[in-house]
Amino acid sequence: MPKRLIVIGGVAAGMSAAAKAKRVDRDIEAIVYEKSPYISYAACGMPYFIAGDVADYRDLLARTPEQMAKRGVEVHVRHKVTAIDPDARTVTVHDLEQKREFTQVYDRLVIATGARPVQPPLPGFNLRGVFVLRSLDEGRTLRRFVTQREPQRAIILGGGYVGVEMAETFHRLELDVKMVIRSGQVLRTTLDEDVRKVVEEELARQGVEVIRGKPIALEGNGRVGAVVVDTENDDERYPCDVAMFGTGVRPEVALARSAGVDLGATGAIATDSHMRTNLPDVFAAGDCAQAFHLVAEEPDYIPLGSTANKQGRTAGVNVAGGKATFDGVVGTMVVRAFDLAVASTGLTTARAQDLGHSVHETMITAQDASHYMPGVAPIHVKLVVDDRTDRLLGGQIVGRRGVAKRIDVLATALHHRLTISDLQRLDLSYAPPFAPVWDPILVAANVAAR
Amino acid sequence: MPKRLIVIGGVAAGMSAAAKAKRVDRDIEAIVYEKSPYISYAACGMPYFIAGDVADYRDLLARTPEQMAKRGVEVHVRHKVTAIDPDARTVTVHDLEQKREFTQVYDRLVIATGARPVQPPLPGFNLRGVFVLRSLDEGRTLRRFVTQREPQRAIILGGGYVGVEMAETFHRLELDVKMVIRSGQVLRTTLDEDVRKVVEEELARQGVEVIRGKPIALEGNGRVGAVVVDTENDDERYPCDVAMFGTGVRPEVALARSAGVDLGATGAIATDSHMRTNLPDVFAAGDCAQAFHLVAEEPDYIPLGSTANKQGRTAGVNVAGGKATFDGVVGTMVVRAFDLAVASTGLTTARAQDLGHSVHETMITAQDASHYMPGVAPIHVKLVVDDRTDRLLGGQIVGRRGVAKRIDVLATALHHRLTISDLQRLDLSYAPPFAPVWDPILVAANVAAR
Repeated sequence: MPKRLIVIGGVAAGMSAAAKAKRVDRDIEAIVYEKSPYISYAACGMPYFIAGDVADYRDLLARTPEQMAKRGVEVHVRHKVTAIDPDARTVTVHDLEQKREFTQVYDRLVIATGARPVQPPLPGFNLRGVFVLRSLDEGRTLRRFVTQREPQRAIILGGGYVGVEMAETFHRLELDVKMVIRSGQVLRTTLDEDVRKVVEEELARQGVEVIRGKPIALEGNGRVGAVVVDTENDDERYPCDVAMFGTGVRPEVALARSAGVDLGATGAIATDSHMRTNLPDVFAAGDCAQAFHLVAEEPDYIPLGSTANKQGRTAGVNVAGGKATFDGVVGTMVVRAFDLAVASTGLTTARAQDLGHSVHETMITAQDASHYMPGVAPIHVKLVVDDRTDRLLGGQIVGRRGVAKRIDVLATALHHRLTISDLQRLDLSYAPPFAPVWDPILVAANVAAR
Repeated sequence: MPKRLIVIGGVAAGMSAAAKAKRVDRDIEAIVYEKSPYISYAACGMPYFIAGDVADYRDLLARTPEQMAKRGVEVHVRHKVTAIDPDARTVTVHDLEQKREFTQVYDRLVIATGARPVQPPLPGFNLRGVFVLRSLDEGRTLRRFVTQREPQRAIILGGGYVGVEMAETFHRLELDVKMVIRSGQVLRTTLDEDVRKVVEEELARQGVEVIRGKPIALEGNGRVGAVVVDTENDDERYPCDVAMFGTGVRPEVALARSAGVDLGATGAIATDSHMRTNLPDVFAAGDCAQAFHLVAEEPDYIPLGSTANKQGRTAGVNVAGGKATFDGVVGTMVVRAFDLAVASTGLTTARAQDLGHSVHETMITAQDASHYMPGVAPIHVKLVVDDRTDRLLGGQIVGRRGVAKRIDVLATALHHRLTISDLQRLDLSYAPPFAPVWDPILVAANVAAR
């Protein structure tokens, strides 16, 4: 009898796990249950789909059930797993199409239930024109809404990266855009104040107003007409035709928890480096699971497609009898914010200090290419350095070009505990169109070394 | 009495050394002799100046003697050092303007005499329309030549990165472009065959013909009219209105050698990691000096502005009584070739094998951003891996975007002897505009790990 793998959730982590398991052990029976009608959809692409960059929502689908079937993975969409019985080694599955329920035995189980956007319980939440980008279908609805209803004013609630991406999207669709952020701080957890200032200046330059305050209600008559915000002074009413929540996501753990799967301090599923949970033969991967932060040296919750894929792949190897580990992340992120790319890795100064590090920080502004080249633009590099060891603890980069992959040099440095002196010695690429003769990373390292 | 530093050569390494020395010890007397009329000129920018990207040649000058004077560095242009007497600790200086000679005592000496382009002794070399880009003035002359004479056909002799850059420049100036390369191989020392093929396809797509053969003469009546090439079959005559040598550079070491400075096996000046030569208090830096190749584990000669600056800075610290070391390079390079960026670091398969490594190689083609984003383009990543240790020995990347700074991740990996398994674990940045969910580097590492 072949071993049966059941995977709950058919997006990044789930599909990676199933595909990888099948590749490692051709004889494994791999079954995926996905509650939505789609698998492998690129949630990260939704802002660009809504902006019209992606013509067809189907372009966001990396894989179809048919393609997976050819690789020997059995995929059932519109199938919601409603219970796990770890003693009986079964899952209860609700077929949303046929409206029937059945149980299925597993030998190995991968929980890849993902995350869901936070929806603060605000009055007026159900008004038309209020969105949370929970699913691909909700993205399609929003796309239709902006093209057919032609809203003029958008309000984004929340200042995380989805909020920033959607601010750009609405702006490109020629809406007036406001962001309501409790702390008043864009990308609060990943940027320090000095770097955030550069991003905020870009938002201001593009006409995006950031309002500091707590949204307390959505108003309207059937359709949203305004957001009421508790600001420093008073309740303010901001008119809008479309409102979008970008207030972060929470791991989808209800199913796992009720089966006795341990959660970590972050509220996401705790796993070891093999992606095993506390239950025998039950693994977890992706946005429902936490990851070890290699610089903070503690579990963290940073749901990203890149991490989900690595975790899924690791789980896939292990469920199939192979051996793979996923050590963790260093917290690398990048987001496009209008004409800027904004990137961060490791610890911000604020977090490093919270963790007890005594740090010094350096922020430099340089050029992203040789000064005489057309299109050369400023780039800002910040380094956070441990006082005692001279070790790099984090970096933030903002600029127009060459940001995302420059942060990766710092991410690589963090994985291997490089010092500033190590950074200074790096033989980084140089050619006038791509970098100045001292790459901005080296400039920052040289200044940090003083 | 303050110590006197004399620096021979006022371009990248020389000016870095003088400026850094002055910063470390304000009391040092820093004197720079530069034989050309300019200091700190960006030779690497010349192809872009000739193409018209850089409007004024003065934009290529990073620093002027007046700016340096404000920082306490005394600069004399049009002053050629003709002899070094290490026993007397003097240099003999020829003032090319005043046509007089004098000697000057030094306490510390930095030799930063740079490199000169190779000029094969071909008949017809002195015809008008034949260039080697020896100096900024020669770049200005070529710029005037192409704008005023409007040549129609260019032939580039040599297939190194200057040759490739100039092919792009001439093409943008709407000349018909041919490259004559002895081996027939573009970027022969930095790319393996499979990666080179991608570059050659781009050259072909842009209408640049690569001719394999040895140039044996330049023909013309006062002005160049053709290049005669010894090809596989026969001597061929290729008509042209402008010919340019891009046949590499040699270290400018005559002065140093006649003073008793030791050269290394590469023919460039040998130094230790402090940039000291064999002579007491005599240092060398930049394109006249060799650098230790950290992956090849032998001295190498890879003249680049980025290395020259690091070496100059190191020498500057040490001559001023500080302590700095320059460990070496990993051989990182990037060049723009029309719509492509072409980058390499570490060892090619060919060189790794020459050095006795048993290697396996992986080459993948991926997308440089999420597949559904506008403008997404293929990117090719090649990894060269040591069979025994799984250690990365080199990488080559070719693509349209995100190439230069992706190679830097591999360069960082080489500095710290990372394995393929280390690469697979890297938390590299992901967002749809900048990278696919599996960055091409991770895709390559995953494939190499199989």
